Amino acid sequence: MDKNNRGLSRRSMLAGTAAGVIAPVVVSASAGSAPAAAAGMTRNITVYADYVPGSTRVGYGLEPGKPTIPGPLLECYEGDTLVIELVNNTDQRLSIHPHGVNYDTKSDGSPFNDSFNKPYETKTYTWKTRTAYQAANGFWMPGSAGYWHYHDHAFGGDHGTVGLMKGLYGGLIVRKRGDLLPSKQFTVVFTEMWINHQVAPNTPIFEANLGERVEFICIGHGNLMHTFHLHAHRWADTRTGMLTSATDNAPIVDNKTLDPGNSFGFQVIAGDGVGPGAWMYHCHVQQHSDDGMSGVFLVRNADGGMPAGAQAAIDRFKGHQHSTTSTPDATGASAHHHQS
Amino acid sequence: MDKNNRGLSRRSMLAGTAAGVIAPVVVSASAGSAPAAAAGMTRNITVYADYVPGSTRVGYGLEPGKPTIPGPLLECYEGDTLVIELVNNTDQRLSIHPHGVNYDTKSDGSPFNDSFNKPYETKTYTWKTRTAYQAANGFWMPGSAGYWHYHDHAFGGDHGTVGLMKGLYGGLIVRKRGDLLPSKQFTVVFTEMWINHQVAPNTPIFEANLGERVEFICIGHGNLMHTFHLHAHRWADTRTGMLTSATDNAPIVDNKTLDPGNSFGFQVIAGDGVGPGAWMYHCHVQQHSDDGMSGVFLVRNADGGMPAGAQAAIDRFKGHQHSTTSTPDATGASAHHHQS
Amino acid sequence: MDKNNRGLSRRSMLAGTAAGVIAPVVVSASAGSAPAAAAGMTRNITVYADYVPGSTRVGYGLEPGKPTIPGPLLECYEGDTLVIELVNNTDQRLSIHPHGVNYDTKSDGSPFNDSFNKPYETKTYTWKTRTAYQAANGFWMPGSAGYWHYHDHAFGGDHGTVGLMKGLYGGLIVRKRGDLLPSKQFTVVFTEMWINHQVAPNTPIFEANLGERVEFICIGHGNLMHTFHLHAHRWADTRTGMLTSATDNAPIVDNKTLDPGNSFGFQVIAGDGVGPGAWMYHCHVQQHSDDGMSGVFLVRNADGGMPAGAQAAIDRFKGHQHSTTSTPDATGASAHHHQS
Repeated sequence: MDKNNRGLSRRSMLAGTAAGVIAPVVVSASAGSAPAAAAGMTRNITVYADYVPGSTRVGYGLEPGKPTIPGPLLECYEGDTLVIELVNNTDQRLSIHPHGVNYDTKSDGSPFNDSFNKPYETKTYTWKTRTAYQAANGFWMPGSAGYWHYHDHAFGGDHGTVGLMKGLYGGLIVRKRGDLLPSKQFTVVFTEMWINHQVAPNTPIFEANLGERVEFICIGHGNLMHTFHLHAHRWADTRTGMLTSATDNAPIVDNKTLDPGNSFGFQVIAGDGVGPGAWMYHCHVQQHSDDGMSGVFLVRNADGGMPAGAQAAIDRFKGHQHSTTSTPDATGASAHHHQS
Repeated sequence: MDKNNRGLSRRSMLAGTAAGVIAPVVVSASAGSAPAAAAGMTRNITVYADYVPGSTRVGYGLEPGKPTIPGPLLECYEGDTLVIELVNNTDQRLSIHPHGVNYDTKSDGSPFNDSFNKPYETKTYTWKTRTAYQAANGFWMPGSAGYWHYHDHAFGGDHGTVGLMKGLYGGLIVRKRGDLLPSKQFTVVFTEMWINHQVAPNTPIFEANLGERVEFICIGHGNLMHTFHLHAHRWADTRTGMLTSATDNAPIVDNKTLDPGNSFGFQVIAGDGVGPGAWMYHCHVQQHSDDGMSGVFLVRNADGGMPAGAQAAIDRFKGHQHSTTSTPDATGASAHHHQS
Repeated sequence: MDKNNRGLSRRSMLAGTAAGVIAPVVVSASAGSAPAAAAGMTRNITVYADYVPGSTRVGYGLEPGKPTIPGPLLECYEGDTLVIELVNNTDQRLSIHPHGVNYDTKSDGSPFNDSFNKPYETKTYTWKTRTAYQAANGFWMPGSAGYWHYHDHAFGGDHGTVGLMKGLYGGLIVRKRGDLLPSKQFTVVFTEMWINHQVAPNTPIFEANLGERVEFICIGHGNLMHTFHLHAHRWADTRTGMLTSATDNAPIVDNKTLDPGNSFGFQVIAGDGVGPGAWMYHCHVQQHSDDGMSGVFLVRNADGGMPAGAQAAIDRFKGHQHSTTSTPDATGASAHHHQS
């Protein structure tokens, strides 16, 4: 039922969702490396920043002219180095600023440190990671492992506000060797009143089969307080979302604050103990969910078949229209602000 | 000084508070069961949803026509099953949706899954729980133990927004065998600018005697960011609010974010190290406390007597009137929104 | 590279910042005491509440007429007692209310308990601390160790709202014996749209040399949701900000919710793995950072010299003017509210 330590999946599965949802691509620096190897490897990744065709939105992508929102999910193991060549295919300055990893001031991604791409400029950002190390008296300084993210810090201002509103963000995972690897990965970004820059019913429908190990990477951005809630599944409020023993006293949650700049991740076994079906995920701020911050986690039967009732639920969801003024899709406009 | 593993108290003590405060009743699926028993038991509970007499508010209760806000505090041990027969005595559709436990789509409590009670309909919801189990590489998938809650997910909309504003919520505790049991239990729900649908000075006065083990169950709902602060007491930010060793490095807090859908709980020894007296609990968002989100935790003398100064403090608190436009009591109206 | 268990620094270093930044002074109850000593000591500290000369702001200070905002950073070990003599040199009632420590109702600092200083009155508040102690079944009740804070609870109202807006707050650390001691300490208070009652570019520039062990104490106040983000450094979400083993599964963060009344702290090795330079710290709520909730953590070379590019970054920061209507400096007015 639980498939661990297989090769990292190369591509998350967002099949069957509305056309407006753009699937992020997973780049794993660790795929193919021996899990037991202690020495880090270096991986060169070229990331392109492009306007989404036909809109004013902008996203990161792994191919020129093919941005995704969120951008590609980047992964590595502690000890690895990611060398990001960022190609700016837009007429605006922009950058890529990571959370959680090590970088010198030249790779800070902030105008403050003169670290950004000018319009149409290509620039390299280097992200390093490390393992925890012992300090003294039984204390250890933390390593880089965690569910992190990256985002623009320069488009239209000094803090990336405009770039974030346009779609310049993505997930970043640093794992410890021995961490369990998922079969499916879903990046969920709450920004203003959007999930991955969409409002219901155009928000992502994440799909997995019953019993698959599924990983959620949750990221908050923008100006509003949010809480991420997943129906019928729960996780530990730890680095991995799991416990380290039967008596581990960490809190178990199924609803967690996701304020701007916050990120967390966790793994669940799809439908474990609850069965297949269409399950909601949503922001638990009531006005936010009512205004479209909800989506579907579709747990198919173990053989991939559609469980009883799931299509009817999705049809209800798809028919659940929100005011069109709430959607950023048509224009990519960044001015949609709800107070909460 | 510390009384552990006694039978679960059957009823929380909210004596001495204003008439507007309705005391929730504790239903424990574990009372009477041997603490060491590994096999789960099943308990059938009938819950009634009724209008609060003379108002437009609606609450859950254990007897028809006697709703409480919050609803009854439900409890069980990991492994137990709660079969909830929900009797809808109102003219509106509504449901009961739990956090933290296992349920199939038929017990989801959401219109999305066609899971709700029509007006005057009775329907059964089944909640299952389980213990943690080992995955691989030293990781354990979490069990169900935690301080959770339940709420409507269907009244007047798809996400329970109207039902929550009317009072359809309550606490839910899943314990591990061996967890310490309290003498007193207090459910504290922050919704909009209310505590348990009241504003000061009508908010609950929670009472305990010096040295009693007291459990707080804190739940956030609605649209606003809140922080729960308790004077003169503190707890660990863990599943139980306690540590597992003298060197446990978990954070200790006395103020914790309580955003919509969040819940946590903890146990304190009433007045431990500080003595008896009237202690404030309140939201630490300043405008919220100023507008009435505060209450009293009255720690009586060990013999139940009134400590010096406590009555004067309560009298000051009772005289501390807030604008009557802030109170939802008269009408149960749901439109009271403060921005924070 | 890591200097542990040296004597507690007596004074934090905020040199080189704008004139508007007032340096807090560190008072350590533990300096000079043997780290291994189990018995607590009592320290008497006189704190003065004074108007900041030439403004309507009010701060706590260790000398009459010399208030700082934030007030002095107070420290002790678990088991110690702090006896605070508060001298009110203002024409308003005010108090000092601590988080995390033990106090009886007379030292509560709340009007609710008739515990405050009348205008020009001197009053004594006693704060006690204790170590964790065993309860039963493997659970321990937490001790007092943590990154806490103190603030007014009486100025102009019942909850300290006016006092906080005027500047009456400060940091409080309770350590366990054996905790690592830092070389530098920085108190960062987010209140409304201010950092330590300043907006950029007048926010503090915190300075350390490469490799120094630096401690941040982060405190939230007021009415708004915030998140604290530090560039190029991260910490564990634990009591100490560190881990207790290489396999400790606590979350690692570099961005943490800092809502009103919240506090946390952590230690980092300045520039570790990233090198010297000027690093931003800021609220990650985008409008907040754009409106001036950002500052600089200047990591100098190991010899104290200015790293390449750092002065240019600071010059850019200093030239990064925000609307003058956003700054509370001129008047100390408390009415600056942004919705978030």
